Amino acid sequence: MGASEITRRGLMLVLSSPSGAGKTTITREILTRDDALSLSVSATTRPMRPGETDGVDYRFVTADDFARMDKAGEFLEHAKVFGHLYGTPRAPVERALAQGHDVVFDIDWQGTQQLRHAARDDLVSVFILPPSTDELRRRLHTRAQDSDAVVAQRMAKAADELSHWAEYDYIVVNRDFDESVLAVMAILAAERLKRERQIGLADFVAALREES
Amino acid sequence: MGASEITRRGLMLVLSSPSGAGKTTITREILTRDDALSLSVSATTRPMRPGETDGVDYRFVTADDFARMDKAGEFLEHAKVFGHLYGTPRAPVERALAQGHDVVFDIDWQGTQQLRHAARDDLVSVFILPPSTDELRRRLHTRAQDSDAVVAQRMAKAADELSHWAEYDYIVVNRDFDESVLAVMAILAAERLKRERQIGLADFVAALREES
Repeated sequence: MGASEITRRGLMLVLSSPSGAGKTTITREILTRDDALSLSVSATTRPMRPGETDGVDYRFVTADDFARMDKAGEFLEHAKVFGHLYGTPRAPVERALAQGHDVVFDIDWQGTQQLRHAARDDLVSVFILPPSTDELRRRLHTRAQDSDAVVAQRMAKAADELSHWAEYDYIVVNRDFDESVLAVMAILAAERLKRERQIGLADFVAALREES
Repeated sequence: MGASEITRRGLMLVLSSPSGAGKTTITREILTRDDALSLSVSATTRPMRPGETDGVDYRFVTADDFARMDKAGEFLEHAKVFGHLYGTPRAPVERALAQGHDVVFDIDWQGTQQLRHAARDDLVSVFILPPSTDELRRRLHTRAQDSDAVVAQRMAKAADELSHWAEYDYIVVNRDFDESVLAVMAILAAERLKRERQIGLADFVAALREES
């Protein structure tokens, strides 16, 4: 026996997609299925929408709070979208990774680019594509609380977001919700098995060799 | 609609491990579960063992045949183990990959090193570790047809094989057969979703953007 223990470094899983491609629903589902995964809750200066909860969907802060947090280096990344600021608080992410847990980020291409520079080896990025334009348009229109102007603005943002697909490690076309969830779960499972993410392998193998 | 089709490049999945770590059983199981996967049947000059079938377990050839095939460039890789030659016929692999199918290889570290040079981007390599020395020794002794000398020789070969674990992309510790099968299936699923393995993504996204 005597083989020593193998632990693992946490990873940062980024899911990006144009709004309406199903990213947020997929993110929620994988969080319920995987105990070693937690969500990075972004801070934002945008107003809370009906149905949202402070500290769950976002941490809603004032522009002054946001500026103070930014100045104190509390953000891993931040970006401005439609005039509102969004940022990823650093502390909860670093705490989770140090404990060997993984963190999932529901952020756009701007945030992903900044995370990529901040944490190259720990980052696993997945881009979710809608199966068709019709489907994308249908999903954007079913958010009843949004005005036509907001939908138009969001279609423009979707086209902008789509232009960054080639910066991601994995591409999932969301044709079927269950299949897409399984695809993201498989990516997570595989990335955890990467040699460089497992700590203690050299000692484990050395113990096997000495005793054999 | 109009979004164009996405196809995919086949990949080469190498499973290596010290003899007795469970690699061959895992390989057989994933082949029954995945229709897009076929096994590369190695050619060998070693004698057939009881229970083996020519063309299924190996293609059993004479030393002269082997030399002729080698000279004709018919091998992707070949290696000598315990005085016997083993080689991977090139044609069936290239045919499968061209059709977008994946090929699994049950080969040792020598073969893997050669494949890595021949096909860098298409290669996905997995090293299976036994959970403990006791377990490894137990599995090596349960092959009833082998003499003590063969077992001792195989333990030495196992130690040699173990020393190459760090050359592999993924490491799976085979603590539980079902879990290990799921781990290899997840690696396969994830690797198929890698951006660079999917053909036609640029056109697919261009069609989405034009119409949105």
